[in-house]
Amino acid sequence: MCHAGRMRILIIGTGHVGSAARAALEASHDVIVASRSTTPAVDITDQASIQALFETVGTVDAVVTTVGKVPFKPLADLTRDDLEAGLAGKVLSQIDVVRIGLPYVTDGGSFTVTSGVLAREPIRTSAAASMANGALETYVMAAAPEMPRGIRLNAVSPSVLASSPQHHAAFAGFPR
Amino acid sequence: MCHAGRMRILIIGTGHVGSAARAALEASHDVIVASRSTTPAVDITDQASIQALFETVGTVDAVVTTVGKVPFKPLADLTRDDLEAGLAGKVLSQIDVVRIGLPYVTDGGSFTVTSGVLAREPIRTSAAASMANGALETYVMAAAPEMPRGIRLNAVSPSVLASSPQHHAAFAGFPR
Repeated sequence: MCHAGRMRILIIGTGHVGSAARAALEASHDVIVASRSTTPAVDITDQASIQALFETVGTVDAVVTTVGKVPFKPLADLTRDDLEAGLAGKVLSQIDVVRIGLPYVTDGGSFTVTSGVLAREPIRTSAAASMANGALETYVMAAAPEMPRGIRLNAVSPSVLASSPQHHAAFAGFPR
Repeated sequence: MCHAGRMRILIIGTGHVGSAARAALEASHDVIVASRSTTPAVDITDQASIQALFETVGTVDAVVTTVGKVPFKPLADLTRDDLEAGLAGKVLSQIDVVRIGLPYVTDGGSFTVTSGVLAREPIRTSAAASMANGALETYVMAAAPEMPRGIRLNAVSPSVLASSPQHHAAFAGFPR
């Protein structure tokens, strides 16, 4: 099954990646955008908030999550709490959107979650962030073949963003 | 700095991988083995237990962890608690050994943690296990360059074990 026509797409996140996804999709599809500051609002670290969002939005053909918070610290300062915060903020949160949102996605629809370049190109202070991205990508690789009703699950891993010049010095030589 | 001579090595775990590490190392090095059922005992999901182990064992040149528990379930049955249990049982636990054991390891020494084939070759029911292995490997890639005093950090990812025939059917064609 595929959705060659106009789709109903939920994008969670209004940052650099969410805005780019919206700009790419809204001309051809019905796009609903949600973040902590929209109506309806959603905080994906709160499972009840995710559930409430899907109850409000109803059935969609695709869900794109582009949010995730991870701490950056030198390794010597990185605590177990920091690692747990990165996993909760970027990995378990996006997986919760997939799990809780599954009944609301049409047969043959899709989930797209957002990882990042640090999974393959670590920088100093990125151990928690790299771990989170690596966890998410590996989860997606393993879980995608078990998704029901022809629903696809993919991770997109942006490189360093042209719109984030504050990170460019750490990624010398990267295309943007 | 390197340790070309006889080293003092702590191996945590007495399962298939821990036993193989011990067999390979004990002829040439002073090997201390610890698990939940040895004296001294250790449970690496308990940070106080890890601390007590290192206080008892004292300074070592290398630490090898070969333990980790992860749940295996069909994706439809996999809960957030299962994912958290896999991360606590195999990822955060081995990282805690590195963090807590760091002051006890000599300059130029090493930590070796154990990941597994499911990080690159998922099987049905392995989403939590694959995620855990992927998280651990990515953490190690990112954290290793930030380790102090020339201490190395590596992950070893065993393929399916000859000594685990119950898993062979899921890995048809794999060398063992």
